[in-house]
Amino acid sequence: MTYCLAMRLQDGLVLLSDTRTNAGVDNVSTYRKLHVFSPGGDRLLALQSAGNLATTQEVLDRIARDLDSQAPESLATVAHLFEAALYVGRIGREVAQAHREALGADGTATFLLSGQVGDEAPDVLLVYPEGNYIRASDDRPFLQIGESKYGKYLLDFAIRHHVDLPTAVKVGLGSMMSTARANLSVGPPYDIGVYRPGSYALDELRVEADSLVLTELHELWETAVLDAIPPLPAVATGAARRPG
Amino acid sequence: MTYCLAMRLQDGLVLLSDTRTNAGVDNVSTYRKLHVFSPGGDRLLALQSAGNLATTQEVLDRIARDLDSQAPESLATVAHLFEAALYVGRIGREVAQAHREALGADGTATFLLSGQVGDEAPDVLLVYPEGNYIRASDDRPFLQIGESKYGKYLLDFAIRHHVDLPTAVKVGLGSMMSTARANLSVGPPYDIGVYRPGSYALDELRVEADSLVLTELHELWETAVLDAIPPLPAVATGAARRPG
Repeated sequence: MTYCLAMRLQDGLVLLSDTRTNAGVDNVSTYRKLHVFSPGGDRLLALQSAGNLATTQEVLDRIARDLDSQAPESLATVAHLFEAALYVGRIGREVAQAHREALGADGTATFLLSGQVGDEAPDVLLVYPEGNYIRASDDRPFLQIGESKYGKYLLDFAIRHHVDLPTAVKVGLGSMMSTARANLSVGPPYDIGVYRPGSYALDELRVEADSLVLTELHELWETAVLDAIPPLPAVATGAARRPG
Repeated sequence: MTYCLAMRLQDGLVLLSDTRTNAGVDNVSTYRKLHVFSPGGDRLLALQSAGNLATTQEVLDRIARDLDSQAPESLATVAHLFEAALYVGRIGREVAQAHREALGADGTATFLLSGQVGDEAPDVLLVYPEGNYIRASDDRPFLQIGESKYGKYLLDFAIRHHVDLPTAVKVGLGSMMSTARANLSVGPPYDIGVYRPGSYALDELRVEADSLVLTELHELWETAVLDAIPPLPAVATGAARRPG
């Protein structure tokens, strides 16, 4: 599996992806799942992927081929981010369709498409295997793909539209860490991308498994959670019940 | 859906169940998912259920009928907790099988069976729809059924074999609360059961949606999580990358 996360905040976008892929438990690898395109200088598009690894790689290859060959439709030609989402969705469907006989529904992939096209506000869209998409909203300023459940609690608590970018990175890493701890199919290194409106470039960082940041994060978070428990209200369980 | 949780600790057992059931989003009800049997006075068996509500109710009815009719095999006759698990598993399979033509795989149910039979140590077992079972262990002293992912982080951090029962109840409620917040199909009231070895009786409590305990728990937990974020290590994202 995979865990990817994208947030659309007041000050910009924050993206996080793990890098673990597996085909069975004895075939575990590290692959980048955060891919950046900035054709033409007036746009920045970041694609995060979950699902069939072969499908995502073929989708990326087709996107790159369309850019190289100056195809009539490509990430360089779309005028809006939602058109890019429909373009990626169409390619995703085509690739999955091409392998359907062999793979069935296992050949699909889901994408987070984030970035900015021209003067439009930056945005985050989730592209479904069916080729359609949804956006993040101010009320729910994050989208997740892959193993999204384990780390959702932290986003629910802490991610609001106005949260600053460094805080959002901390929260995202915490969400990633909670997921990796609970599910072996998600793991470091983690790729982080931060996008500031109008820059048309992504600030990127890879956090390695043995990095000081991750060690410190683990320790501080565990301590904070354990310290939070004793003050919680005690529950007095009632008199023993002894049903027939 | 459902979220049920059972812990096997040094001092006894702690069980938690939500009560929400739904058949579509417009048919939401409250049903008890924690069921207690103590036939004969030398045993206490608690059953928590997830899956098809009709199947779980028929399983409970059959269990009660076997007890009433003094059947050759029942929760009163089993000599070990694992025999009770196999008995429940067999009934679960029989009921699902009886409705398979109409329901297919949707008619299955999964159970947590906890308690004590005679002088055996109390234990917690998860009974699969296939009729087999697994136990909790000292290394992983909890089992979950239903929507188990959202609240797992807290158990991973805080539930160890030596944790005392009141603390385990707090942690369990925190895990339940995180799940209910992330997933509408899980919700209060929550049923709590605490079992002390040799008592052959379950201390029970229901925590209602508007209870002070739950309100306080929500507030304290949210504050603790939000306070934990600023001290986390900051990540300096690298120089902007601008790939072709």
